[in-house]
This record gives sequence, C-alpha cells and structure tokens, in this order.
Amino acid sequence: MTDTVQDGVGELTNSRKVEHIRMIEQDSGTDRDARYFDRLRLTHRALPELNLSEVDPSVEFMGRKLSFPLLISSMTGGDHALVRTINRNLALAAQEAGVAMGVGSQRVMFERETARASFALRQYAPDALLLANIGAVQLNYGFGIEQCRAAVELVGADGLYLHLNALQEAVQPEGDINFSGLLHKIGDIRRELDCPLLVKEVGCGFSSEDIAGLVSQGIEYIDVAGQGGTSWSRIEHLRSDDRHELGMLFQDWGIPTPIALRNAAPYRDRTQIIASGGLRNGVDMAKSVILGARLCGMAAPLLKPAMESVDRVVETIEALRREFVTAMFLLGVPDVAHLYGNERLILDEMI
Amino acid sequence: MTDTVQDGVGELTNSRKVEHIRMIEQDSGTDRDARYFDRLRLTHRALPELNLSEVDPSVEFMGRKLSFPLLISSMTGGDHALVRTINRNLALAAQEAGVAMGVGSQRVMFERETARASFALRQYAPDALLLANIGAVQLNYGFGIEQCRAAVELVGADGLYLHLNALQEAVQPEGDINFSGLLHKIGDIRRELDCPLLVKEVGCGFSSEDIAGLVSQGIEYIDVAGQGGTSWSRIEHLRSDDRHELGMLFQDWGIPTPIALRNAAPYRDRTQIIASGGLRNGVDMAKSVILGARLCGMAAPLLKPAMESVDRVVETIEALRREFVTAMFLLGVPDVAHLYGNERLILDEMI
Amino acid sequence: MTDTVQDGVGELTNSRKVEHIRMIEQDSGTDRDARYFDRLRLTHRALPELNLSEVDPSVEFMGRKLSFPLLISSMTGGDHALVRTINRNLALAAQEAGVAMGVGSQRVMFERETARASFALRQYAPDALLLANIGAVQLNYGFGIEQCRAAVELVGADGLYLHLNALQEAVQPEGDINFSGLLHKIGDIRRELDCPLLVKEVGCGFSSEDIAGLVSQGIEYIDVAGQGGTSWSRIEHLRSDDRHELGMLFQDWGIPTPIALRNAAPYRDRTQIIASGGLRNGVDMAKSVILGARLCGMAAPLLKPAMESVDRVVETIEALRREFVTAMFLLGVPDVAHLYGNERLILDEMI
Amino acid sequence: MTDTVQDGVGELTNSRKVEHIRMIEQDSGTDRDARYFDRLRLTHRALPELNLSEVDPSVEFMGRKLSFPLLISSMTGGDHALVRTINRNLALAAQEAGVAMGVGSQRVMFERETARASFALRQYAPDALLLANIGAVQLNYGFGIEQCRAAVELVGADGLYLHLNALQEAVQPEGDINFSGLLHKIGDIRRELDCPLLVKEVGCGFSSEDIAGLVSQGIEYIDVAGQGGTSWSRIEHLRSDDRHELGMLFQDWGIPTPIALRNAAPYRDRTQIIASGGLRNGVDMAKSVILGARLCGMAAPLLKPAMESVDRVVETIEALRREFVTAMFLLGVPDVAHLYGNERLILDEMI
Ligand SMILES: Cc1cc2nc3c(=O)[nH]c(=O)nc-3n(C[C@H](O)[C@H](O)[C@H](O)COP(=O)(O)O)c2cc1C
Ligand SMILES: Cc1cc2nc3c(=O)[nH]c(=O)nc-3n(C[C@H](O)[C@H](O)[C@H](O)COP(=O)(O)O)c2cc1C
Ligand SMILES: Cc1cc2nc3c(=O)[nH]c(=O)nc-3n(C[C@H](O)[C@H](O)[C@H](O)COP(=O)(O)O)c2cc1C
Ligand SMILES: Cc1cc2nc3c(=O)[nH]c(=O)nc-3n(C[C@H](O)[C@H](O)[C@H](O)COP(=O)(O)O)c2cc1C
Repeated sequence: MTDTVQDGVGELTNSRKVEHIRMIEQDSGTDRDARYFDRLRLTHRALPELNLSEVDPSVEFMGRKLSFPLLISSMTGGDHALVRTINRNLALAAQEAGVAMGVGSQRVMFERETARASFALRQYAPDALLLANIGAVQLNYGFGIEQCRAAVELVGADGLYLHLNALQEAVQPEGDINFSGLLHKIGDIRRELDCPLLVKEVGCGFSSEDIAGLVSQGIEYIDVAGQGGTSWSRIEHLRSDDRHELGMLFQDWGIPTPIALRNAAPYRDRTQIIASGGLRNGVDMAKSVILGARLCGMAAPLLKPAMESVDRVVETIEALRREFVTAMFLLGVPDVAHLYGNERLILDEMI
Repeated sequence: MTDTVQDGVGELTNSRKVEHIRMIEQDSGTDRDARYFDRLRLTHRALPELNLSEVDPSVEFMGRKLSFPLLISSMTGGDHALVRTINRNLALAAQEAGVAMGVGSQRVMFERETARASFALRQYAPDALLLANIGAVQLNYGFGIEQCRAAVELVGADGLYLHLNALQEAVQPEGDINFSGLLHKIGDIRRELDCPLLVKEVGCGFSSEDIAGLVSQGIEYIDVAGQGGTSWSRIEHLRSDDRHELGMLFQDWGIPTPIALRNAAPYRDRTQIIASGGLRNGVDMAKSVILGARLCGMAAPLLKPAMESVDRVVETIEALRREFVTAMFLLGVPDVAHLYGNERLILDEMI
Repeated sequence: MTDTVQDGVGELTNSRKVEHIRMIEQDSGTDRDARYFDRLRLTHRALPELNLSEVDPSVEFMGRKLSFPLLISSMTGGDHALVRTINRNLALAAQEAGVAMGVGSQRVMFERETARASFALRQYAPDALLLANIGAVQLNYGFGIEQCRAAVELVGADGLYLHLNALQEAVQPEGDINFSGLLHKIGDIRRELDCPLLVKEVGCGFSSEDIAGLVSQGIEYIDVAGQGGTSWSRIEHLRSDDRHELGMLFQDWGIPTPIALRNAAPYRDRTQIIASGGLRNGVDMAKSVILGARLCGMAAPLLKPAMESVDRVVETIEALRREFVTAMFLLGVPDVAHLYGNERLILDEMI
Repeated sequence: MTDTVQDGVGELTNSRKVEHIRMIEQDSGTDRDARYFDRLRLTHRALPELNLSEVDPSVEFMGRKLSFPLLISSMTGGDHALVRTINRNLALAAQEAGVAMGVGSQRVMFERETARASFALRQYAPDALLLANIGAVQLNYGFGIEQCRAAVELVGADGLYLHLNALQEAVQPEGDINFSGLLHKIGDIRRELDCPLLVKEVGCGFSSEDIAGLVSQGIEYIDVAGQGGTSWSRIEHLRSDDRHELGMLFQDWGIPTPIALRNAAPYRDRTQIIASGGLRNGVDMAKSVILGARLCGMAAPLLKPAMESVDRVVETIEALRREFVTAMFLLGVPDVAHLYGNERLILDEMI
C-alpha cells in the first residue's frame, strides 16, 4: 500500500478503511454471486398500456423526495485523501441525482479529530437524505447516545444507522466480539435519539427472530443487507494473514437478500424495509421493491465510480434509474406504489 | 457495413433493418438458448401402429391449406437489395413448400416510396398464406386503419400482424415508447379491418393478463413470440453504443414460449394460438402443437438460407417437415388433429 | 472401410451390420450418458448379515439356469468374418459363463445363403439360453411365421425376439417405415410359434400404452431396451450423409430405461420384464432387478471384448458378476428373489 | 514405497496400513466431495446477543470433559516408525487440546508383538478420552471377548470401537467377507465387555435397519461414519491392481453422513450418535450437532498434520475449534446443549 497514513490514536480504525477499499479493488471475488436474485423471473407485459416517459420512479422516504428508491449504502470516512474524495463525490452525486446516501462507520471520528472532515457532507448535499453510521457493537465498548448524537450532527444527517456485523468482528483477530445485550441498548438509543434510527447488517442479512426482536424494540427502519454481494468475511481474510482460512470458510455465510426480505414481510406494517446486499442493477431493485423494500441500497458497485469523479457516480446512478424505469414499464406499473409488495409480478422462481 | 443506403425520409427505419440482419449474422448470441423446450420430454411409441409415409402433417389455417403448420415469421422489407432478395426468396419458398409467411414491419413503406417493392410478394406466392405487418405502437404515432389497409393491400395479404415490441423500443435511444391506450386502438383496428387481425410479440411473449386483454377486444389470432430465441434487447444493444449495458441486462427478459403457450391455453376456444420464439426444429414444433399452437413460426433460422437462395430455404423447410413428421410418427399420431393440445404425449417435464 | 464384402442379394443388409460396428468403435458418443441410473442411490447395509461367498446371484429364466441375470443383447450376424468371430466368441463365452445370449437381426439369412453360418451358434453353446431375432416391421414386408420358425431353428434358439425400431427406420433413407397393424401381427406370431416370443425395442423403450398393447396380445416377455445407452439415431446419422441432422436431433429421443421399467411395473404379473439400454455395470443391473427386471441385457459394452477373444468376453462377464454380487452383499440380499422388485432398497432418487 | 517392513506373521495387515496412508497422501480423490453438508444453509443471527468469548463449546462424553465435541477418528497402529509417530502425535495433541481420540484397527497386535507399542497411548494422553478399535468382522474369524479386552487394555481405553467395513472387505482380493451373524456377536461383546462399546462404519454410513438392529442389541454408541469423506473403496482400488475397476465403481457407494444422521434421529433416546465421514470444518461439525450428533469425528484431515508434529495437530484442532465457536456465535447459541438437535437453526436445504 503506497498511501501514507499517520500514526497515533485511531490509526487502526482509520487505515483499515483504506485497506478494505484496496481489497475490494483487487479481488473481484469479494463481490459474491447474487444468484438468488437471478432465480426470480418477472412477468413481462407485452401491453404495458403506459408511456415509458410518464413512468414515475420517484418515492418519498423519511420525508425526503427521491428521484428513485436508491440509497448509496454506508461505506467510508476517515483521515485519508482517498476516503474524503469518495465521500465528497458520493455526496455531490446524491444531491445531483436525487438519491439517498449513508456514510461509513463514524467511530474513527471519536479517535482522530482529523477524520471528522470526511463526514461533514451536508455542505455538498443540502437536499439529499443523508444517514450517519455507527457500529451497534460499540454500544458495548463505551459508546452511547452522546456519540450517536454527535455522529448525526457532524453529517447533518436525517437519521442514524446502527450496523450489526457479528461475522466481520468474529473473523478479525482484533474484533469487537461482545454482542450480548445489544438488542435492548439499540432500543434505548432509539427511544433517546431525536431523529429516526435505522438498523442494518453488512452482508449477512437478518433472520426472522432478529427482525421480530428489532420490531419489539420499536425499530422502524431495517436494512437487511443480506448475503449475495460484498463478503466482509472474505475481505477480512484477505486483509489478515489468516492461515487457517476462517474468513474463507464463512465467505458465503448469511441469509440471501431475497430470503431476508421475505423474513421481513410479516412486519411490514410496523417497520420499513430497505433491501441491500448484492443488488447489482435496476432489475434487482425492482425485484426488491416487489419483495417489500421501500429503498434499495448498493455499496460496492458505486465504489469505483466514486474514486473517479462525481460525473461517473451520477452516470452510474442514471443508468440504474433507466434500468429500474425500464423494468417498471415492462411490468406495466406506472409508479412505485404499484410495484411495492406486488408479488403477482413474479412469473416464477427457478431452481 | 459495406452496403450503401440512400439518404432521406425513412432512412433510419430503412437502414436499421439491414443493421439488424448483420448483427444476427455476426453474433450467434442473439439467438438465445431455448432451454425451456428441451425440458419437455415426449413419449416414444415403440408401436406407433402407423405407416410413416401416411402420416399427414398438413393443416388448414385461415382458410388456406398448409403442407405442415410452419410460418416463416415476420422479418424484413425496405429499400435495399438484400432485403428484397430475402423477401423474394422466402415468398417463392413459401409458395413451393406450402407454408405461411409474414413480412417485416411495413412502416418504412410510408416513409420511402422505394421501399414498397420489397413487400409486393403476392406475385411470387399466389397460393401462400401471406401476412402483412405493422408495429402496434405506431397507432400512437399517427398510424390508423388507413395505413393498416394499405399494408395489407401492398402485400396482397390474408391478414395483418400488429406486433408489440415494448422492450425493443425501450432499449433504443430513438425508441417509440408511448404504449398507453394501445389495447383499445388494437381493438378498433380489428373492428374496422376487412381481413383477420393477428397480434404478436417479437420475443418476450404474452402474460396471462395480456392475453385476457386481447381476447376481450375480440382478437382471434395471437402469436406468443416468446423468450428463448432471437433477443431484440441484445441486438439493439450491439447496434447502439449502449455503454451502460441496458440491452444486455434485459437480453433474457420475457416469458419463455412454452410458458406463454400455457398462459394462452384457457383462451383457446376464443382465439387461435401461434407459437414462435426459439423454435428450432420439428420436435419443438410438435411440442408447440401439443401445448396448443395451431401454427409454428420461425424467424432467425430461416434468415441465412434466405440470403442464399430459394432452394436453400425450401431445403430447410423440407428438413423441418421431415423432423416434424418423424416426431408425429414416433408419437403415434396420424394427423395434426391428434397432436393438437394432447398433453398426454408429454412424458415428463425435467428440471 | 477395408473389409471386402461381396456384391449381390442382401448386400445392403449385410454390409450395414459391419458399418454399425465400425461407427460404434469410432464414435464414443453413440453410447449415451445413462444418467437416469445414476440418479438412484441404493441403501447400504453396514450389517448385511451375509457371507459374501454365499450370496447367490443365479436365476432361472425360460427354464434355463443362469449364473446371474445377464443377457448378451442381440447384436450381429451376417456374411462377414468379423461378425462370425463376434458371434462365435459371444456364444462360447455365454456357454462358459452361464449367461443368456441373443443374436442380431436374422433378416440377412433370407437374403444371403452365406450369412447363415454366423447364426448357427448352438454348437458353441449347448447349454446357454439362446434367442433368435427378427425385426417386427418385417411382418409388414413379407415375413411371417415361416421365417420366424426358420430363424429359431437355425440358431437352435430357446425363443425368438421380435425387435421394434421405429426411430432407426425413420431416420434411414432406405428405412422400412410401415409400422401399421404390427401389434396384431405380433400377436399372431405369438399364437403360432412353438417357442416363447419376446418383444424388444432397440434403445427407445416402451410407453405404458405399448406395454398394455403387448400384454393384451399375450406377450409374456418384454425387453424394454430403453434410452440411455446405444443411440441408433446417432449411429444412422453418422453412417449416412444426413446433412440435415435428423439423426442427431433424435439421438436422445426415447423413454429412459428406469422409467420404462416403471411403466412396465403394473404388468409384472402377466409378463416378464427384461431391462436393457444403458446398463453399464453390476450396480445398474441390481437397480434394474429392483425396478422389476428378471433379466438384464447389455449390448455395446460386450462388443469390443467380442472382437478380441472368448477370454476377454468371459473376463468382462465375470467382472460384471462380481459387481452384481458385491451390490447384493452390500444391500444385504442373499439371493435374487430378495432383490427383485424390492424398491425399499432405494435410498433416494436424486434430481 | 521406500519403507522397509519386516517379513513374517501379520506382515500383510501391518504393511497395508502404511500403503493406505501413502494412497491418501498421493491421491486427493480418495477424499470425496462432501456436498451433502454444503446443501444445508444455517440461519445467521445478526443479533446473537452473545459475547463470542463466552461461547462455551465444551461437552462431556462418556464421562470425560472435552474442550469441544471433536474426535480424532480411528486411523492407525502397527509395527512401523511412521504409524508410531502418527499415533504418538495424535495422542499428545488430544491431551493438549482436550479432544477424544480413537486408534486404528488393533488386529495387527495379535499377529505381531512388535506392533503393540504403537497402541500404548495412555502414557501420552493421561486425561483424554481414548478408544480402542477392532474390526467387527474378526468376530467371524476367531476373535472374541478376549481380544476385545486385550485391545482396550493395551490402549488404556475408555471404550472399544467395533468397526464395520463390508465394502472395504468386499473390494479387496484378500478380504474377510463373512459378515453373517455379526449383529448378535456384537451384542454378545457388548454384554460381556466391562467398558462402553461403540460401533462404527468406515465411510458408508448406517441404514435405518442397521441402526434399529444395533439398538435392539443395546448398543449405546453409534458412529455413522457415512459417505462423503474418505473412500475406502477407492483406496483399495488404487492399492490393488484391480483391472476391472470394482473399487472405482463403488467409490461413492454408501449413505451420506447427513442422511445417516437423520436415519439415527428416532433412536437418539436410546443411543448416542457420533457423526463422521466427510466433516471438514467447524461448520460441518455444527451442522452435525444440529442433526443430532454428540461427538464429531474426523480422520483424513488430521493425517497430514500428524505426520509432521504435535504442534501441527494442535494448531489444526484449534482452528477447527475457532470455526465451531464462530458458527455457534453466529447462530446465537451459547453452549452445545442449545445446538444439539436444534433443526430450527437450518435455514433451508438446497437442491
Ligand atoms: C467499501 C465498503 C465499506 C463498507 N463500510 C461499511 C460501514 O462502515 N458501515 C456499514 O454499515 N456498512 C458498510 N459496508 C456495507 C454496505 O453498507 C452494505 O451493507 C454491504 O456492502 C452490502 O451491499 P453491496 O453488496 O451492495 O456491497 C461497506 C461496504 C463496502 C463495499
Ligand atoms: C431479422 C429479424 C427481423 C425481424 N423483424 C420483425 C418485424 O419487422 N416485425 C415483427 O413483428 N417481428 C420481427 N421479428 C421477430 C420475429 O417475427 C419473431 O417473433 C422472433 O424473432 C422470435 O422468433 P425466432 O426466435 O424464431 O427468431 C424479426 C426477427 C428477426 C430475426
Ligand atoms: C452393434 C449393435 C448391434 C445391434 N443389433 C441389433 C439387432 O440386430 N437386433 C436387435 O434387436 N437389437 C440390436 N441392437 C440393440 C441392442 O440389442 C440393445 O437393445 C441396445 O443396444 C441397448 O443396449 P446397450 O445400451 O447395452 O447397447 C444392437 C446393438 C448394438 C450395440
Ligand atoms: C488413514 C486412515 C485409516 C483408517 N483406519 C481405520 C481403522 O483402522 N479402523 C476404523 O474403524 N476406521 C478407520 N478409518 C476410518 C475413519 O475412522 C473414518 O470413519 C472415515 O475415514 C471417515 O472419516 P473422514 O472422512 O473424516 O476420513 C481410517 C481412516 C483413514 C483416513
């Protein structure tokens, strides 16, 4: 790695982010094969009875209007030129393209003053839905409502993501592995926080029991972040010198995103579901909305464009929007309300 | 491309046809894998109790006698030597071999006087069932009963195909994308037209809802043109400089032909079904008739022979007839009436 | 081909046999993949409670005792050194190893006097179960009870096979394709013949309707000869200059042997079933007996050994017997009576 | 083979062991693909509500405490430096890592005095659960309670394994193939022996009937040793000059371990089940415990480390323990009691 990173407090957390990005750049295998989405075949309408140019992909989410239900999933932040560039490009693109954006874990900002700048994104995206991010497990390592509020404030965020990453922590030598009692602590944060709280995984999805637990704590936004896309177990394996292949063994562990969405279906009246994990195009987005998602997140596919320029990110988002609109048109649905939860649009589920 | 094409009105529509043909010639991938047909296994009869030479594959369709239920599907037409040759060869072969033939979209004839000659095929095929062709979406772009009548007249056709190609239009930069209100306009044409009206897709098939809609408008002939053969989404992708791969993403979109035939089954008493999209031999034809088709269309497999000579087309058709007759013989059915809709001839449906 | 064959009457029938053998030698693809047998997994018994050396694989069939239920399926005969050698080696081996043997079609003996010697096998196999062979379709081309009796007599056979080969005839340019009215003619032969009559396919199997028909004519021995082994459609394609690939299209046509055995199951009280078509080892034989076969035929696997020597055939048969006995032992069955029709020995049927 | 082995009584039994080890070293194909385990997908818990460092993988088995439910499966012993090293390394590692260990077949010790040393392992593993081993079939070849007691005594074992290896014996030229009447003889040994008796296969698993039989004899410990891992049929094939491929034909014969575990499920109240055969990591172990195993055995994966050093064995075991604990953590189970037989932890069973 040629990037020079400063020594001192929070250096580990900080440099780790850059290592992750390099791993994803180098090893195409960290993006797992989203085969579960490909099993679903949607129903073509030869007679959509629509004007494609009038198909309306816009949605409202958490009080903000989005041009279509895309979320740039939580990725990065820290004291490094690369991550500052990525975050700035993503924020400017989110503003321009009218989509939502989450930042990466903000733990580093409490360890390194110099990391704060990378999260101050409201200046670039005055109208975008922005989401702060903290690892839920930190609630067992000294974090509380104070840090949560500070994270939201720095971003100028509309809400706060708490992410759950048990597998990622478990396969790291230095992992934070005490996940006991987290459910109630998450509930406490939700009750004390002044803005909406969202809970997400990072690529392993939620089981029915997990979702039931979160709903019992009044969590109103759940991002399934299921298996099928970026594999943190594999990334941590490549990053470390894990001779015994622990990370490789678990690289495909987790609940595939479409299954996680189905696990969440019974709770849709009490919580809003966000799909992420392995979505790779506008058709996957349409499938996710059909399976009950209000918003569709993508992380890895936006990383490379964000390293290049705002324009490349906007271009990628526009292509996704065109794909999504084309799918809506061919399914004969004029707006997202007609797509949402409409499982009759599934032709069959191949084995 | 070495062909010289004239400038002027309708040039776009005209040259597009030749580009399509070149794409199909060059990229074998535009012919998608018809795996759905291969899943069906038919029941062999060791004792067919028939004389193969007495098996009768002939049918009557729209009042014309056909030597077997083959339709040369709608392909081409325009102001270009290549398309004139193709159409002439196909028409002469249709006459000689006793099969039906459709022409390609006739929109170009309204834009370029010089394109008309390519559609005047009755001279070459005095006895063949000939079908004119117009894009249904043109009914939203100025076309009406007048153009339909003119199209039928120029061909000397027995009926008129209106084709639905929502995906193909959607993935084109210059596509005609207003598909709203088409169903009733199609119904109006049917009520005003003096000859039979047929509605077809171009490789994506019809959903149950589409078929129910068409039947409610009194449409008596539906050609499913399902997924599994020529992929227009892929062809349009290759033709354009579609950097964002929209056409590739949708290259396998649609309802596989055997499923589309099953979607149509409940309406067989009110409408005649034509199978097309991915049929590649006489066994696929037999399977299609078993699944309820009265006629079996093929487009791409006849393109190359048509570029060579009448004889090559006739030869290809004769080979298809021999395959179809062999299948009938081995199934123990003496005539097409015993094949039609006879699902007991399916041994099993493999996964 | 370097073999010199004489001109004259029956030359076509005669030389065809040698061509067939050469095709099978050269093209490994004529032996199709017997995947249906591999789908069945049998139940291992850790405690067979048997002495392997006391497992008794012997059976009685048509009044003859066999060392195990193997039949060398009908293959050859004619006026050619190669086929004489093959038949002599097979007969001597059948005698030595205590198994049954069928000869190939004897039509040639009525066309060429010099072909007769190849069928006179009783001299080499005084105690073996020997079966004569005539194409059933010949009953529509001048053959009758007289030819049947002559065929049995020349071989010194215990019974006569009539084979049904509709596909093989259909894909040949010179095929005998009148299969009408055969069922009753077969029934007539059965009623007039003094020895048992067996009916077989040649690699496409029998449908339920076929078997019901044969049983209604009192046929007491049916050899399913199903799909999965030697493909006559492919062989005839390779042999001819079939430019239009008719034979290739139908190369996997037919009813897989295990399915054909299941089709026959309801008739086991009235007819004895022989399995053949794609059996390749003693485990396939055990599976066939479990599915209701009294005898198990193999053709192609014995062809090459027969071209070499008696010893090689005996060796191949001994290996098959050891495989069969090992399977019986591991299934915990002491004799074939406990194997026959015992479907509880099937662990599962994989997809 | 460069090892010098002494001539004389028991030489065959003795040198065979070393040949086996060499075969496994050289031919990676003897370790079959454990695909049945991979079909099971477990339920990830995003909120395990546990501290990974407090997950307790320890179990008690036959009165001994194990650090986690791992058994080093029966492998070797004899008069040869290599096997002495392997056994000593395994025993020292079992002691250090707190797991159970079985020795290989002790028949050789009755034939060769010099082979005894290799089995005297209590000195290296004073606290480990140690299991003696005799081939059950030897009860038909002169062995009885006396030899069983001597085997237990020499090892200083907690119990005695009788192994059943019908396939392995059947494919050997020199095999002991009289498996008749074994069930009752095994029952007799159980009644006479002063320590627990365990019955195992060696890679083909037990059918339901086998397990019912053993339970009826009061056998309280059954090690399924199912299909999916080491293939003895293949090893014996490679070792011999089995021209007719008997061993290859049966290389995948047997009942896959997960199916064998399900076969045993109804008897769990009367007998303790040990899983082995194709387990290759801690996730397979977790799946086995979920399917009802009290202990999880592995043989082949520990062979190579044992040829190197105690440390390599301990390291391998520690890696397995970490995998097992990680799986427990991600499943949200704090101890093995919550894992055992808990089929709700299975998300789905893929085809
Ligand atoms: C480079 C990178 C960094 C990430 N960092 C975070 C993070 O800090 N916090 C978080 O909640 N998720 C993080 N994620 C997980 C994503 O938000 C997302 O849940 C997951 O990658 C699945 O989506 P994908 O398959 O589209 O990549 C990261 C993902 C990537 C690719
Ligand atoms: C070269 C070519 C041109 C075509 N042009 C038309 C057309 O103008 N109008 C139409 O209705 N369908 C057109 N089609 C679609 C075919 O009629 C048919 O529905 C489709 O290709 C599926 O059949 P196949 O898989 O046998 O090619 C065309 C197909 C090909 C291959
Ligand atoms: C070289 C060869 C010649 C054959 N000739 C005949 C024949 O003359 N009559 C007949 O009934 N079957 C004939 N058969 C078919 C076999 O008897 C058998 O039904 C078929 O090959 C399936 O068995 P297999 O897969 O073990 O080859 C022949 C097969 C082979 C391989
Ligand atoms: C080198 C080797 C030697 C073995 N020897 C014996 C033995 O002597 N007695 C026995 O009961 N099993 C023996 N086994 C079988 C194992 O105990 C075990 O049941 C089988 O290998 C399946 O486990 P695996 O797939 O983890 O190897 C042996 C296995 C190996 C790999």
